[in-house]
Amino acid sequence: MSCNKRVGTQTVELKNRPKLIAATSVVGPKEAEGPLGDYFDIKLKDDKNGKDTYEKAESSILYTSITESIKKANLSEEQIDYLLCGDLQNQITSSNFAARDIKTPFIGLYGACSTFSLSLSLGAMFIDGGFANYVVTGASSHFSSAERQFRFPLEYGSQRATTCQWTVTGAGSVLLGKDGFYPEVTYITTGKVKDYGIKDVNNMGAAMAPSAVDTIYTHFKDTGRDPNYYDCIATGDLGKFGRQITETMLKSLGCDISKIYVDCGESIYDNGRQDTFSGGSGCGCSASVFTGYFYKQLIEGKISKILIISTGALMSPTTTFQGESIPGIAHAVAIEFNTRR
Amino acid sequence: MSCNKRVGTQTVELKNRPKLIAATSVVGPKEAEGPLGDYFDIKLKDDKNGKDTYEKAESSILYTSITESIKKANLSEEQIDYLLCGDLQNQITSSNFAARDIKTPFIGLYGACSTFSLSLSLGAMFIDGGFANYVVTGASSHFSSAERQFRFPLEYGSQRATTCQWTVTGAGSVLLGKDGFYPEVTYITTGKVKDYGIKDVNNMGAAMAPSAVDTIYTHFKDTGRDPNYYDCIATGDLGKFGRQITETMLKSLGCDISKIYVDCGESIYDNGRQDTFSGGSGCGCSASVFTGYFYKQLIEGKISKILIISTGALMSPTTTFQGESIPGIAHAVAIEFNTRR
Repeated sequence: MSCNKRVGTQTVELKNRPKLIAATSVVGPKEAEGPLGDYFDIKLKDDKNGKDTYEKAESSILYTSITESIKKANLSEEQIDYLLCGDLQNQITSSNFAARDIKTPFIGLYGACSTFSLSLSLGAMFIDGGFANYVVTGASSHFSSAERQFRFPLEYGSQRATTCQWTVTGAGSVLLGKDGFYPEVTYITTGKVKDYGIKDVNNMGAAMAPSAVDTIYTHFKDTGRDPNYYDCIATGDLGKFGRQITETMLKSLGCDISKIYVDCGESIYDNGRQDTFSGGSGCGCSASVFTGYFYKQLIEGKISKILIISTGALMSPTTTFQGESIPGIAHAVAIEFNTRR
Repeated sequence: MSCNKRVGTQTVELKNRPKLIAATSVVGPKEAEGPLGDYFDIKLKDDKNGKDTYEKAESSILYTSITESIKKANLSEEQIDYLLCGDLQNQITSSNFAARDIKTPFIGLYGACSTFSLSLSLGAMFIDGGFANYVVTGASSHFSSAERQFRFPLEYGSQRATTCQWTVTGAGSVLLGKDGFYPEVTYITTGKVKDYGIKDVNNMGAAMAPSAVDTIYTHFKDTGRDPNYYDCIATGDLGKFGRQITETMLKSLGCDISKIYVDCGESIYDNGRQDTFSGGSGCGCSASVFTGYFYKQLIEGKISKILIISTGALMSPTTTFQGESIPGIAHAVAIEFNTRR
């Protein structure tokens, strides 16, 4: 019987320390023009990526991100034991159709914008548990497919609220393996669904903040770590307002993360200049920012310990029409790499 | 480093043999009137289950199924390390909203009608890998929420094609653990996405059959087993026509499963009397038939080795509108229990 890896109530320790061998970010033109533009691996000039629909464009950038990560590791699709990914589309078709063209056993996930760290969590557990030698995990979103999926067709020209976020056109993937000198997954804290009754789909940050707070707080309680342990704590896509709520709520619980805390959604755009209001959102937000920016910071030794917490709002247009509030979820993954070992 | 559990190209052997401690099926009135009616645990008199929408009704039956399995095992929600489930709704809201009311770390899955065996696969790997002591896995579907999600609102009174299937109103959940004398998960074969170009959403069996064939054939190749090893091979929801295609295609590959092969979708209704044409479908189909019927057959010693292969069609209304074909996927789980040990 394998040893128990559970730590506290919601956390597991990955004793075999799965390695992040390669990572690839693909983003649209708007993301490329943002403050992190220089870091992204592949930047589209045309946000349709030559396809005839936004949905097919989204699927194509996820496909590119996955196959690029496999190439970077000098592996072939046949050597990958599992592909785990998800997206925001109904029935996660961006992922399903990307997976159709990849000769790899496929596991479809849905955690809304928490999908990136969810896929990373499961992929790392597959490696740690001895179920796989190589796994690719990933997530994607597309501004134009998400707008018509969740809000209004772009043609309506709807006015946006101050608390609105801008769905990132982007995809990110990570190739995980057992061996080598690469950043390692050390702990995973899987989130519970939290719902504080927010019904405003133009204020997703507020809907997701309680789940981020719960997962971060539980991670520290379960592991015995405190905020000083990490060089960086990065939430997925809470945006400016959700980031402020999270920071304040955690402080009131005696947990001050302000010195090392950033939100991928707040960071990906210049929200004033780029008219993105509260910031970026979507599965592709933390996926592209982690794989484009933070992964390189780890590899270059600029940071050595990061806690990434992608955050998801678990409503659908149907539940919104039916007057339901918006449940949130957040999954945390601790990634560590000491370049001076 | 834990030992490698991989067997062949798509299969893992679960050496710690996770146990299926409890299982619960919940079905609607039509399913209760079908040939397996006597086996289901909970049968609704009203397919809205007292809720004001079909979507809320679906979420409520999934919730009931999950909490009943926890009760049967004399556990509390706090003792469950992970809940893994999914459904057919946009953004899997039946699962998200069921999980909102359960105090358990939650992992959302989407594999269309393959979700039941997908959730069982991952849950069993979590137990086998030492990541969890107890896990609940499950899936649900609802005829009326699926019709308006994927086809037409019921009010349209659309005529149905001969190859059409009837989405099962039902949910099934399994409580998995490490210890005890219960049916055990021994092997898992995770499917690849297969697309043979079928575009007819009224003939899902044909769209999913190639993936069932591929997963079953690969399972035998990977494990070295042959059809004689099992007492029963059960696909998820191919229906009458999809079952015939699968049987014929496998026979042409030299693999005759006809003596022990059933399809949950073909079995759940009396398709002539109940006007269900090709048979049942939906995540809730294999979920309720496995937990309601096969699990009891295992416990009572009537069968001792079953391979369950839930099958999913990975399209969405959007991809259908955009002229895409229907990719399929199928995940196999081998479950064994010798009552005379």
